[in-house]
Amino acid sequence: MSLAGALLSGDVRALARAISLAEDRDPQATELVAELQPHTGKAYLVGLTGAPGTGKSTLADALVKVIRDRGQTVGVIAVDPSSPFTGGAVLGDRIRMSRHTLDRGVFIRSMGARGHLGGLAAATREAIHLLDAYGRDVILVETVGVGQSELEISTICDSVTLTLMPESGDAVQTIKAGILEIADIFVINKVDLGGAEKTRRLIQDAMALGPKQAWRPPIVMVSAANEEGIAKAWEAILSHQAYLKESGALTSRRQERVKQEVVALVAERAREDARRLLDGDTVVGRRLRDNRNGKLNPYTLAEEVLGERASQGGS
Amino acid sequence: MSLAGALLSGDVRALARAISLAEDRDPQATELVAELQPHTGKAYLVGLTGAPGTGKSTLADALVKVIRDRGQTVGVIAVDPSSPFTGGAVLGDRIRMSRHTLDRGVFIRSMGARGHLGGLAAATREAIHLLDAYGRDVILVETVGVGQSELEISTICDSVTLTLMPESGDAVQTIKAGILEIADIFVINKVDLGGAEKTRRLIQDAMALGPKQAWRPPIVMVSAANEEGIAKAWEAILSHQAYLKESGALTSRRQERVKQEVVALVAERAREDARRLLDGDTVVGRRLRDNRNGKLNPYTLAEEVLGERASQGGS
Repeated sequence: MSLAGALLSGDVRALARAISLAEDRDPQATELVAELQPHTGKAYLVGLTGAPGTGKSTLADALVKVIRDRGQTVGVIAVDPSSPFTGGAVLGDRIRMSRHTLDRGVFIRSMGARGHLGGLAAATREAIHLLDAYGRDVILVETVGVGQSELEISTICDSVTLTLMPESGDAVQTIKAGILEIADIFVINKVDLGGAEKTRRLIQDAMALGPKQAWRPPIVMVSAANEEGIAKAWEAILSHQAYLKESGALTSRRQERVKQEVVALVAERAREDARRLLDGDTVVGRRLRDNRNGKLNPYTLAEEVLGERASQGGS
Repeated sequence: MSLAGALLSGDVRALARAISLAEDRDPQATELVAELQPHTGKAYLVGLTGAPGTGKSTLADALVKVIRDRGQTVGVIAVDPSSPFTGGAVLGDRIRMSRHTLDRGVFIRSMGARGHLGGLAAATREAIHLLDAYGRDVILVETVGVGQSELEISTICDSVTLTLMPESGDAVQTIKAGILEIADIFVINKVDLGGAEKTRRLIQDAMALGPKQAWRPPIVMVSAANEEGIAKAWEAILSHQAYLKESGALTSRRQERVKQEVVALVAERAREDARRLLDGDTVVGRRLRDNRNGKLNPYTLAEEVLGERASQGGS
């Protein structure tokens, strides 16, 4: 059976193999995803973001349990901050959530940054499509959420939760960084540590200063490790889903997502072409390598690469 | 006088205006940078990275003083985690380092993520070229360094310092994330808090496990707020510079940088073209907007965009 056929028939090894191809940026993965596209669009995509140490993984684990208790299947993609140099994944990510390993309704996968960051984003998108085609009802996408990685999660997922820890300075950093705006649902984790109420007020005050939104992001207090408040968090996500469907925002979000993905695919192709030309035995490649003083003009070189791409058929 | 001429003659307002054009992703900035390229390559580029709260800004401020005391001019670019939605910069970044405001040998600028992240990276590269052409001896590039942003700093700068705080869990997170490998110099800040020695050992042990490198990153202990150890940190950066020059690694680093920049320029052009086609009154644009169920195949659409780009002249 073809890999696509095996995946659609529910073969978990076919799914794992396909995601590995995506992670390796194997062109086969892209072809496979394109082929499976008609079978996608059914999964609900939930992004879990937040600073390191806020407990996103524990929250994911607890959410998986709630989602399974309600009879839905779930896929988890943990986009982890692995070394781009070694390609290694964080061991903890791979072995955590082991309590779900015997449940065939749960599929968990860590994705590492093997090589270029644009590559990780592309691999993550492909893995989501693969899980979607595989028939998962819900896909949780967990990313380290400090800095710039959140910006992508909001274009990749339908609903985005931002996890904060009380009294950690997280809330203040988040507000400073303008990351508040990424959240459809706030989750304050580790409420048992105290100070959660203060964090809640900080977020509320910051939101009050922002523009008026049709959807007012709820703030849910949880203790993921103790599995407290998780059902409420899931309800909040479902409310956001209902809002997106009723308001028509789901359609426009998904349209925007297709657009972003097309732009990313085109840019990735251009990047690959440019690298191939610069590494190869081409005019631009030789010009780059013959240069010793580092004073080569990248703008002129970029024009030359664009020219060579055009003369080679334009794409 | 042209903007390029004014900038080369040392007009600081011309420099500020040019950087604003870069930040706005105005095509004029790209043209200007291309025009100024023959005047670049003299500045030494130092990246300052580290997690939020580790004191990168205070370190930058203290380094500026040491560099100025040695008679060199300096430019500081603080790439800040601003909201991509509001385009606002963090006020603190703009007002800090105000003690240098009367010193014409110091130019400080915050850059925010107005729009796409690729755009911020491109704007930062352009700002560096502009400061270089303006004649700065040293350019400090400060970025929030959690997650994936460091990966770029190592291709943008000659020497990269990674700032850590003792006992903060930073070191462990950094080791887990494989970010160690990005550092040419480790700076342990806030040594007065205690626990610095333990952090130093953690880093040393992790380095001992890694591959043997020709350059062994030194670990410098500082208290940036008290201006202690800063001269040592600067000496460590200069040692790395000397190593790069002697080993020939500076040439290969800068060649690699030109390559990365060309690839980024080509990808940015492709992204712009794709957006223009998808937003415009084109076959692909109409197909995207007419789609209501979100099931459009991005791969097919990307092929169509590539086809339209090719038919429009290929670049």
